[in-house]
Amino acid sequence: MQRTLIIDCNKLVGEVVKIEGFVQVRRDHGKIAFLDVADRTGVIQVFCSGEQAGNLRSQDVVSIEGSVAKRPEKLVNPNLETGEIELQTEKIETLSKSVELPFDMSNKELDLQLPTLLDFRSLTLRHPKVKAIFSVQASLMAGFRKAALDLNCIEIFVPTIAASSTEGGAEVFKIDYYGHKAFLTQSPQLYKQMLVPVFERVFTIAHAYRAEPSVTTRHLSESTQLDCEFGFVEFEQLLDLLEQVATSMLKFTEEKSGKNLADFGVEKIAFGKIPRLSLRQAQEVIFKEFSRDNRKEKDLTPQDEIDICKWALKEHKSDLVTITKFPTKAKPFYTKPDPEDPEYSLSYDLLFRGVEVLSGSQRINDYQQLVDSIKSRGMDPKNFEMYLQAFKYGMPPEGGFSFGLERLTMHILNLANIREASLYPRDMERVDVRFSTLKK
Amino acid sequence: MQRTLIIDCNKLVGEVVKIEGFVQVRRDHGKIAFLDVADRTGVIQVFCSGEQAGNLRSQDVVSIEGSVAKRPEKLVNPNLETGEIELQTEKIETLSKSVELPFDMSNKELDLQLPTLLDFRSLTLRHPKVKAIFSVQASLMAGFRKAALDLNCIEIFVPTIAASSTEGGAEVFKIDYYGHKAFLTQSPQLYKQMLVPVFERVFTIAHAYRAEPSVTTRHLSESTQLDCEFGFVEFEQLLDLLEQVATSMLKFTEEKSGKNLADFGVEKIAFGKIPRLSLRQAQEVIFKEFSRDNRKEKDLTPQDEIDICKWALKEHKSDLVTITKFPTKAKPFYTKPDPEDPEYSLSYDLLFRGVEVLSGSQRINDYQQLVDSIKSRGMDPKNFEMYLQAFKYGMPPEGGFSFGLERLTMHILNLANIREASLYPRDMERVDVRFSTLKK
Repeated sequence: MQRTLIIDCNKLVGEVVKIEGFVQVRRDHGKIAFLDVADRTGVIQVFCSGEQAGNLRSQDVVSIEGSVAKRPEKLVNPNLETGEIELQTEKIETLSKSVELPFDMSNKELDLQLPTLLDFRSLTLRHPKVKAIFSVQASLMAGFRKAALDLNCIEIFVPTIAASSTEGGAEVFKIDYYGHKAFLTQSPQLYKQMLVPVFERVFTIAHAYRAEPSVTTRHLSESTQLDCEFGFVEFEQLLDLLEQVATSMLKFTEEKSGKNLADFGVEKIAFGKIPRLSLRQAQEVIFKEFSRDNRKEKDLTPQDEIDICKWALKEHKSDLVTITKFPTKAKPFYTKPDPEDPEYSLSYDLLFRGVEVLSGSQRINDYQQLVDSIKSRGMDPKNFEMYLQAFKYGMPPEGGFSFGLERLTMHILNLANIREASLYPRDMERVDVRFSTLKK
Repeated sequence: MQRTLIIDCNKLVGEVVKIEGFVQVRRDHGKIAFLDVADRTGVIQVFCSGEQAGNLRSQDVVSIEGSVAKRPEKLVNPNLETGEIELQTEKIETLSKSVELPFDMSNKELDLQLPTLLDFRSLTLRHPKVKAIFSVQASLMAGFRKAALDLNCIEIFVPTIAASSTEGGAEVFKIDYYGHKAFLTQSPQLYKQMLVPVFERVFTIAHAYRAEPSVTTRHLSESTQLDCEFGFVEFEQLLDLLEQVATSMLKFTEEKSGKNLADFGVEKIAFGKIPRLSLRQAQEVIFKEFSRDNRKEKDLTPQDEIDICKWALKEHKSDLVTITKFPTKAKPFYTKPDPEDPEYSLSYDLLFRGVEVLSGSQRINDYQQLVDSIKSRGMDPKNFEMYLQAFKYGMPPEGGFSFGLERLTMHILNLANIREASLYPRDMERVDVRFSTLKK
């Protein structure tokens, strides 16, 4: 007998079908039992005798033959896509038996402490509310990719192994590379720039590695970046492009993952015209509207980010706000200083509901200026040979930007910790298994 | 003045436009000069005076204002999308100047030795014929993704840092991970399996690292895999799925990159019904049709692969052929032995025009059988704790497959070396720059 997908049972009332899936919940009522069985398309209530249910429990994998029946009016569940039907069991086969669960998986919320959530990651990811995080994440990726393709970007796949620690700043992971020293790239930044003269417009979904020896709720040792880079563009056009990609990707996600977003209590995103303020202008707003004088700081404080977003929502009906022109010194070497005021740079962040989710800049595209900038940061241009080669042979005005995927996911869904937005998060204390438990 | 994309000039005869792009070729004819200028949409012939052309050369980045004119009939170039027009220069601005090129970039073929091709990778990638390789590669990725999404797979992004060398066999790269030992994953294999109970069907485009200390034309230290994994499927259905994905992805690539494929002299792919043979059946064909008796070998030889594909094309009008049931011992620990003949496994390769481009298998989904299989290979189940957790709590029958992206690209385009199919290839001798040149 062929398998029927659970969602398709809705159209098969009165017929005998075979479904295959995981037991999510078992409810016993004297001599009868109800099982909630899930496959990739949905969940269905299965009615069976206690004998048929045997010792089945949550996470057992089953194949069930039975007839699809309408539920009595008063037992209809309006919150379930198959809420008007149930499956009346003829035969249950166990395809794979689960051991006893270490905690209850049947509640709507999986209320676990983070270490437990991660110690049992291969199990906890199965909980509908946990799994939903990654459906939203997949929508963000797909929405980003669609937006980039719509702008004529070509997808590139760039290396993660590099011969030198390239961007400076953050700590890097060292690799033993055939006896030579090599490093995991901190981002796809340099490679996406190098490919601008080749393809003019590129995008990539790439790994980023940061060996920061700190344990916070906002850092991962291995994360995912959504990156775009555009040739033949100037600053204002870059702002148009980043706002277009961000808006398009968020709208796509609301469309594809609306139900998941609703389950997380996420409000509809406000897509008013996105206000653009330089850092100094934003600090003026903070000073005037929120009475904090941070007008000489080199960045917005976390509270400033929250407040400027409140202001943008109130004044511009926008959950997004673009902040530009951060001090040149505070930005990486490839950032182009504003020719009219070189103390500030042609850089930008995009804030969303109180948090920065994107950053980028117009880049230095002049070879000599770039070499000088590398030197001025105390780095050696010799370590950038292949990167500089791309500029030596002609590089158009160019720029780009980058979203942190886990960060964006975390923030949209109001998760407490970025680890919840990574399938198998890597940090200082854990690579799947906690290091502290390894040396027994 | 706004930039006009080169391809759009076709519709603007008689009008004054500004184009921006790279000088590809310069041809001087006494007091006049022709420039071929390229942007992401195409190439246009620019007519100018020698004075206007100044010292412009290949790879200079220019902005040119001029009027679009019809070419005289006899000067029309039918091989160029803008072959009926040219741009008559009013003003040329150099946006970025290239240094002198180390070799001629103006010929149709870039006839360089591999080391030079890679030493100047940021330059050589700009050559139209080199760049075309990666347009085809992008089509393969997009075609794969579309095929996977059409089959309800969800996109996952899996870690590349692992706590133990997982799959055995090939050498692994060691990382210094906050003072602990960690490794770069050899493939996304274990993680995609772990996510089957979560999403049932998953796909990923992932990095794969192999520290094999050998320099061949077919191995990269860092490569890209296109992976799918499906739950609730049995062997025959897996064969249907892999053939469906492969066919769909190749058709997509022919559709999107037809011109590039033609430039490489690639013949139309034959999509007859794909023959399926067990290894032993294939070896019988080789014995009967090609008079080589390899019937006891544990795999097809390279010549066998070529010949069985010739046979498939002749007998079945198919450039693809599926080979199944390789000896269990020759396959990784997670491969399911055939219950009817455990010496052989429920594994498969897909061959395309004489080369294996995909491999995969039905997996062991029983926890105890999997633990036993790990032990039987001399490995320690303790190193697979998070992986085994996924099986302990119920795992449906499942299987999947994986394409090597660079390998497939190389093979479709008949490239001589897999390094040509990687933007910035990593091997034993080179990470962008050759190690041998570093210690000067």
